[in-house]
Amino acid sequence: MRNRVWRLRERPGGTLSGDHFTLCDEELDENGLSPGQVLVRNRLFLCTPAQRGWMSAEPNGHVPIIERGQPVVAYTGGTVVQSMNPDFPEGTDLRYFGTWSEYQAIDPTGPFVERIEPRLTLFEGVAVYTLNMITAYVGLIFIGEPKAGETLVVSGAAGSTGSTAIQIGRILGMRTVGIAGGSAKCAYLREELGADAVIDYRAENVSQRLAELCPDGIDVFFDNVGGDILQAAVDNIAKMGRIVLCGQIAGYDGGSCPGPRDMMQLVYGSVRMQGFISTDFLDRYEEIRARLQDWVQDGDLIHREDVRQGFENLPDIYASLFSGSNSGTLVAVIDPTLIQD
Amino acid sequence: MRNRVWRLRERPGGTLSGDHFTLCDEELDENGLSPGQVLVRNRLFLCTPAQRGWMSAEPNGHVPIIERGQPVVAYTGGTVVQSMNPDFPEGTDLRYFGTWSEYQAIDPTGPFVERIEPRLTLFEGVAVYTLNMITAYVGLIFIGEPKAGETLVVSGAAGSTGSTAIQIGRILGMRTVGIAGGSAKCAYLREELGADAVIDYRAENVSQRLAELCPDGIDVFFDNVGGDILQAAVDNIAKMGRIVLCGQIAGYDGGSCPGPRDMMQLVYGSVRMQGFISTDFLDRYEEIRARLQDWVQDGDLIHREDVRQGFENLPDIYASLFSGSNSGTLVAVIDPTLIQD
Repeated sequence: MRNRVWRLRERPGGTLSGDHFTLCDEELDENGLSPGQVLVRNRLFLCTPAQRGWMSAEPNGHVPIIERGQPVVAYTGGTVVQSMNPDFPEGTDLRYFGTWSEYQAIDPTGPFVERIEPRLTLFEGVAVYTLNMITAYVGLIFIGEPKAGETLVVSGAAGSTGSTAIQIGRILGMRTVGIAGGSAKCAYLREELGADAVIDYRAENVSQRLAELCPDGIDVFFDNVGGDILQAAVDNIAKMGRIVLCGQIAGYDGGSCPGPRDMMQLVYGSVRMQGFISTDFLDRYEEIRARLQDWVQDGDLIHREDVRQGFENLPDIYASLFSGSNSGTLVAVIDPTLIQD
Repeated sequence: MRNRVWRLRERPGGTLSGDHFTLCDEELDENGLSPGQVLVRNRLFLCTPAQRGWMSAEPNGHVPIIERGQPVVAYTGGTVVQSMNPDFPEGTDLRYFGTWSEYQAIDPTGPFVERIEPRLTLFEGVAVYTLNMITAYVGLIFIGEPKAGETLVVSGAAGSTGSTAIQIGRILGMRTVGIAGGSAKCAYLREELGADAVIDYRAENVSQRLAELCPDGIDVFFDNVGGDILQAAVDNIAKMGRIVLCGQIAGYDGGSCPGPRDMMQLVYGSVRMQGFISTDFLDRYEEIRARLQDWVQDGDLIHREDVRQGFENLPDIYASLFSGSNSGTLVAVIDPTLIQD
């Protein structure tokens, strides 16, 4: 049986493009499935900045590193099409860290493999109540430890994770300030997501605007960007403020993402700065998805997906994450029947 | 009544020296004490790196800033010599944030003023169970959240705060690694304080030695130094590691103390980095001092004071903090009767 696979050709140093990947048409493992395994058809892939890190990071022992020549790893939704495991018969919908391939054999009892909840479609289970939404929940609530009445600032606030963080902050009774690039994203934040204030980093001086909008300081800064925007937040952080390090987009396209200029600012302010990855809290996912679903059903929480199609377009779809041209959670749908209804 | 006062002449930008201060002989306030106030004779001063920050930092709203021409602020022990407050009669021993002056009027019910516990002498209450020891306790236990069996690394480990942190780590059942400069300090750490391993940053490659000594990573890094040593610790931090930002000596003598090179290291490692100042936990001081005293009395915890004398020598005594020539908690004793027994 033939199988198409996108493999990493070069580690993306500068601007990421389709040239960093190679499409291979190859034979699926001749030996078939081992006992306990299932063959899944990969039907949609989430496109997230985290993958970029796996492609370009130095090995650090903490996250998977995609070596040159290996298939690109992605958060994936798929369906069992052949089974050597009676608990996971043909037709079972799963989510897992898969690869940019049409088919693959997996161990359905392995780490990070989950059944899609019966109340959700495969699309909802992967693209709506997704890793980005869970990441926003984990980062804001478990790492940021917010209190009602506090001031929350989110960078990359119109993005998939940021837009969820802004809304959860609002639901929890925080004053919310979103930082995003361009007037369209800022209008979306204010008008559709209910942010109390917005800063357009392309048109405004972020540090000055933060000082005006947060006269008592920032209590929680949820950072997706890093670099100068992180520094501006540190300059305006409140005593006992918390900085949630979710991602550092400023560092992806060959830029660097250094820490604050002067660590004494963190000492004097008794500031906490904490990195996390959402899978640290895997045992809480069920509870988190249920709470997110309640908010969505009540109309408090909006989730926007940016759906693109075509297995052969995967590299270009993924690259759009870094050009600022996408809005909402970027999803590459391979099986168009998933979105026909 | 005449009073001598050391005032800040210049903010110490580069190497701190006696030239940054002026000794003034001036009249104590003619109007005498207000109701509720007491006049204290300042009998000893603690010399800490934190004061340097107050002299040189930009105003940040979080710590006191000593402006040019103002008396130098110090953690002080003194005795009431004149009282307008019946609860604090003549002879009462107090600790407080005082100034480098022979006498001063204070409100004994004000913030950060405490009575010396009856079981302690004034010297013990200020110079032994001191702010540095409390800082080590707060930083390691409340901020670092250590567990028995974990690996603790302390920079500036032979200093006043660091040497307490190393010992508390040992008492709590951690594996302890101390970083200090020079073979004498390293021998002291190993032989007298019971550190499991030491790194001489003047003679060894810190990052390489940390990798050898901490093959499973550093669980808690207690940082007094910053700069390259902080980076070396970040390069060797364990998943879910905690970095306690106590001070950044590297930044004091005109150096800078930037954050880590790449914040993604904190994201991938789910690392927490947290600044603090010990007075955040003022309401826990009594419990902390009692626990420290138990350890000292049991012989588990050694405290070493570096006692210097003479009001007129205060700037030179203080400057020795930054030349690496002192060892243990640096104390300037003004009243020699305090140390005659």
